[in-house]
Amino acid sequence: MIIDGEKVIFSFDAAMEAAYVAEAGSALTVKTHDCFYQHMLEEGSCISTFEMDSANPATGPIYVEGAEVGDILKVSIEDIEVADRGVAMVIPGAGFLADQNVEETKLIIPIEDGKAHLLGLELPIRPMIGVIGVAPEEGDSYPTNTPWNHGGNMDTKDITAGTTLYFPVRQDGALLALGDAHALMGDGEVGVTGLEIQATVKLKLDVIKDKDLAWPLLETEEATMLLVSGDDVEDALRKGLEHTLPLLQKGLDLSWNEATILASLSLDAKISQLVDPKITVRYPIPKSILSTERILEIL
Amino acid sequence: MIIDGEKVIFSFDAAMEAAYVAEAGSALTVKTHDCFYQHMLEEGSCISTFEMDSANPATGPIYVEGAEVGDILKVSIEDIEVADRGVAMVIPGAGFLADQNVEETKLIIPIEDGKAHLLGLELPIRPMIGVIGVAPEEGDSYPTNTPWNHGGNMDTKDITAGTTLYFPVRQDGALLALGDAHALMGDGEVGVTGLEIQATVKLKLDVIKDKDLAWPLLETEEATMLLVSGDDVEDALRKGLEHTLPLLQKGLDLSWNEATILASLSLDAKISQLVDPKITVRYPIPKSILSTERILEIL
Repeated sequence: MIIDGEKVIFSFDAAMEAAYVAEAGSALTVKTHDCFYQHMLEEGSCISTFEMDSANPATGPIYVEGAEVGDILKVSIEDIEVADRGVAMVIPGAGFLADQNVEETKLIIPIEDGKAHLLGLELPIRPMIGVIGVAPEEGDSYPTNTPWNHGGNMDTKDITAGTTLYFPVRQDGALLALGDAHALMGDGEVGVTGLEIQATVKLKLDVIKDKDLAWPLLETEEATMLLVSGDDVEDALRKGLEHTLPLLQKGLDLSWNEATILASLSLDAKISQLVDPKITVRYPIPKSILSTERILEIL
Repeated sequence: MIIDGEKVIFSFDAAMEAAYVAEAGSALTVKTHDCFYQHMLEEGSCISTFEMDSANPATGPIYVEGAEVGDILKVSIEDIEVADRGVAMVIPGAGFLADQNVEETKLIIPIEDGKAHLLGLELPIRPMIGVIGVAPEEGDSYPTNTPWNHGGNMDTKDITAGTTLYFPVRQDGALLALGDAHALMGDGEVGVTGLEIQATVKLKLDVIKDKDLAWPLLETEEATMLLVSGDDVEDALRKGLEHTLPLLQKGLDLSWNEATILASLSLDAKISQLVDPKITVRYPIPKSILSTERILEIL
């Protein structure tokens, strides 16, 4: 099934209506827009002429048949193919050093042979999805630029082809939407953009019945991690650890203190992004310590 | 030259006196103590009977002949051999979730065949140095548990065998001291200890004349990074970025905004530790983007 990208949302809303319908177990090809809805790809276009209401369009929502409140939606990302050019910017007053970003700079960046060409450098691309999420709890609504426990703008560079996301289903059908791919981004996304680009994403959707998650969970080849957001980086890091330690505790039958020691020795506190309305972090649990299967078992 | 570890300091003080003397260009073997001065290695020993004045002993200071104020001391870490057992703890009221750490837990952890044995797991060790630094500027003094621009308790897991540290020389002879090795530690050191252990460290010392550094610089196989500390994690991350961007600017002849975009796409904001009196971070610059030689050239 191909989802063309004609229908997008600008907020993950509990009451949003489905734009597409997919079966559980089905494979989808989803066209996604860059975070500027392709408005910055013209020479001479600038942020002052861009309607920020049109930022971070997410293709969807996709109603997944069989996904009910209280289930988990499993999203396997099989492939991310990016366009042949994207854009990266400094936007006045935005970014981690916002007060030092007073003038706009925009680089339109061609991609050739898997490399981004910018500033005299050739950087191998690592395509990832910036915005991906599901409908939140009753009464809640989050702009697509904001990450929270429904997913959203988590801007986590580990969300690549070959990884799997698990979301708590808060509305029947889950109502998945995605966009804001980056051809390249560093942890922190300190300048406020990655290499923003259109993409074609191949996904497989499955439903895990009667399991709950407080935050989205990501499985990579090496590790499993909650994607936890907070009001600032310290808050996000504390919450991330508070939610990660119980997985070690339950998964390995440890006390709180034992889980704390194990985390101190073996888990890395990692920053996903420092620049969105909420800050996102992760503490990957190596599979050599605890398997994803075991983590899913104890949820 | 073998430095036996009999002489230690508990603060990096501008006025501290040399305990050992080494020539520039010389190779040293330095015995280091664990952060508890080996007091926790007995069954039954506990933190309440430990004098915290004896925490984080650093072997030294080592006066390096030829190192003068305004030079850089280059410390090549050739080998870190750790003892056959170490200790990891939860200490009441300490750690990143200090308010949830109310009872003491201590694990004495044997190391066999390169693996740490704890909690039913076998974890491959990755020996690193927690405390390493030089005398600070005139009038300054920092307890060895504190990281700052002289180095100190930077608790950075990348400080391993095969890496090289560069310190600003603020007192003649530099006055190097080191200790607090960890057989294993994750980024963040969230529990407040790593796998604390005695070690034998092989170093080579060199002097680079007439170069300055605001913060210690670390070269690994893949990257070069400033080790920057701040009052809290947000402050450390901001300062770290503010000091890293000029390296990209000068090294690659970029504007501030161009350096910001490059950092946003290609540099990871990484946390070294979240639990010492100051917080330490790093933004590794991949050598594929900018060489260490070029960075040293532009200092």
